[in-house]
Amino acid sequence: MNYFSSNFKLGILGGGQLGKMLLNDTRKFDIYTCVLDASNEAPCKIASNEFHLGDLMDYDAVYNFGKQVDVLTFEIENVNVDALEALEKEGVKVYPASQTLRTIQNKARQKLFYRDNNLPTSPFTRFAYTSEVKEAIEHGSLTIPFVWKSAQFGYDGQGVKIVKSVSDLEGLPNVECIAEELVPFKNELAVIVARTPSGESKNFPVVEMEFHPEANQVEYVICPARIPEDVAQKAIDVALKTSEAFNHVGLLAVEMFQTQNDEILINEVAPRPHNSGHQSIEASYTSQFEQHLRAILNLPLGRTDSKVGGVMVNLVGSEGYSGNVVYENISNIMGLDGVTPHIYGKKQTRPFRKMGHVTIVDQDINMARKIAEEVKSTIKVISE
Amino acid sequence: MNYFSSNFKLGILGGGQLGKMLLNDTRKFDIYTCVLDASNEAPCKIASNEFHLGDLMDYDAVYNFGKQVDVLTFEIENVNVDALEALEKEGVKVYPASQTLRTIQNKARQKLFYRDNNLPTSPFTRFAYTSEVKEAIEHGSLTIPFVWKSAQFGYDGQGVKIVKSVSDLEGLPNVECIAEELVPFKNELAVIVARTPSGESKNFPVVEMEFHPEANQVEYVICPARIPEDVAQKAIDVALKTSEAFNHVGLLAVEMFQTQNDEILINEVAPRPHNSGHQSIEASYTSQFEQHLRAILNLPLGRTDSKVGGVMVNLVGSEGYSGNVVYENISNIMGLDGVTPHIYGKKQTRPFRKMGHVTIVDQDINMARKIAEEVKSTIKVISE
Repeated sequence: MNYFSSNFKLGILGGGQLGKMLLNDTRKFDIYTCVLDASNEAPCKIASNEFHLGDLMDYDAVYNFGKQVDVLTFEIENVNVDALEALEKEGVKVYPASQTLRTIQNKARQKLFYRDNNLPTSPFTRFAYTSEVKEAIEHGSLTIPFVWKSAQFGYDGQGVKIVKSVSDLEGLPNVECIAEELVPFKNELAVIVARTPSGESKNFPVVEMEFHPEANQVEYVICPARIPEDVAQKAIDVALKTSEAFNHVGLLAVEMFQTQNDEILINEVAPRPHNSGHQSIEASYTSQFEQHLRAILNLPLGRTDSKVGGVMVNLVGSEGYSGNVVYENISNIMGLDGVTPHIYGKKQTRPFRKMGHVTIVDQDINMARKIAEEVKSTIKVISE
Repeated sequence: MNYFSSNFKLGILGGGQLGKMLLNDTRKFDIYTCVLDASNEAPCKIASNEFHLGDLMDYDAVYNFGKQVDVLTFEIENVNVDALEALEKEGVKVYPASQTLRTIQNKARQKLFYRDNNLPTSPFTRFAYTSEVKEAIEHGSLTIPFVWKSAQFGYDGQGVKIVKSVSDLEGLPNVECIAEELVPFKNELAVIVARTPSGESKNFPVVEMEFHPEANQVEYVICPARIPEDVAQKAIDVALKTSEAFNHVGLLAVEMFQTQNDEILINEVAPRPHNSGHQSIEASYTSQFEQHLRAILNLPLGRTDSKVGGVMVNLVGSEGYSGNVVYENISNIMGLDGVTPHIYGKKQTRPFRKMGHVTIVDQDINMARKIAEEVKSTIKVISE
């Protein structure tokens, strides 16, 4: 199929910031692109050839949208997977596949997948309801502390709780969940793998998520990770094996723990462009977004090594501010060497909402890391 | 003024490929952008916030469009400069300024500007009509060979003719023109300078335009130019001096000849992003498009040094093909290291039409140059 013609249509489910960055590359290659999103203010409304309004969890909305395109992908996991499966049966190329997404959408199923495929992950127990977790503690089959995770639609900061005493279970929803062993880790790492329908596969370098010592929030993504070569290679091997186990097509971001004794354990995966790969736009020979396109269109994958070192800082809404967003001191950070802000185009800020990110590049990763600190202490996402 | 808010509007005159690449950066910064172009199929129709239809040479169309924006720029020189001047008087920030454009639009005026400002350029004579050129030859005040250039709207391959005998003048339009001394040159070089309203100024590295030995057409743009350091510095000095003489705001691409005895002579300038800077998207810390935005918005200018070496190859329509465009073997070139195609999104090809470009980057500029040769011999712009 000739992708570089107006007879071809690419569909993207979700019109958020990941889709928006992907559209830079569909525009670069002049690939005709249709986007489905529930919000008329989605960042992807501009720069797509066609923008369709619809609920991503609605079977008919996804199915009817998917019937109009040749290749369908998504920038968010919360989409109607039954519709994807129906579309696959009718010949639409859905990448990543519905089966992959079905496995990943449920955290219990995801963990079982790792276990079944001999992929390293922390020990866990699956529960049909949170109430059963309490019973397991009482019966002594589960010991505190552990990490409670809702099986469905868990996201950072939601659907996840570190349980240090039985009372921490109070107020949690009574849903399907897992209890995961708490892993004391040295580093949180990530590797993004791209894989084509033909099975060609390439990985980006290992990145390191540096945490704020008190807030326990990712502050910086650093590429390459400042870890020994053999640990990096172990992480890459795990990521490649994971991508192959899924028979994955497109990008797979594999988040991992480097334990105190340098073991690698899979934390979770995302079957799409990922926050841990944003620095690739400026730092890599090929950005993760271009690579995703190349993968799902079965084009040759691009070089994944880095031109320069890259550090990424998320721009999230400051606490105490809601309303029309203002990026305070943005011109100040643009005066620093190698600094590129990416503003996602969401009109309203609220505490911790992802509003953009800033990439800092330099030949010397330590210099980039230093400038990143200045960026972080200078720019503020507030409201009018 | 807060550019990063929806109260601010940037206007771009012209919706072609340069505007299209500029829109990647307005989207990146979420800057509200309006585009005026005469064609409903302009590449900028997608990715601008507002697309307006109108003739760029029409006073009213440009004036009425310009009244709606805060900062106005252009991606093409052929715009109604009287309208720009009127808008400036009414407080619209027009960058580059109407006066600069007026000087550049007329090649005779442009040459006089260099002479008046002690900027090096080849000797020339100005004529009100081409018929006077013939008389000057007959009277012996002008000697053959020379380069005839139409003063107005001359473009590469049009409005320019090398005159080796009187008969070469036959068929040329009887218009205002110049006769320029033919400069035997070693290299054609270019330097892009960015300058802000505050007078901050930064130059990109010197690039080299490598010509096809027989066709006398630019085949490769190579960054950095493979020339001695002192010659490069001389070219940079001339470019910076030129930008300052114009009191320029925005990008100024200065095309120069490196003569046989390593003199630098200005050939011509373009007050906008330029073909000789396309490789900056992949090779530089800051792309020329982002730099243009930073300049006209009076933001700090970005780093202009290179992350890696870059070579650019234009994708022009092959001879003998007209109609719906096909990029033959595009996936083959995407399998080569460090290769990024940019497809401008013009539906119809015709011989020599600029349809896109390909950038090749590598740490080693000679390796990039070698891969560029393979790109050039592989991809073909043909029709269905």
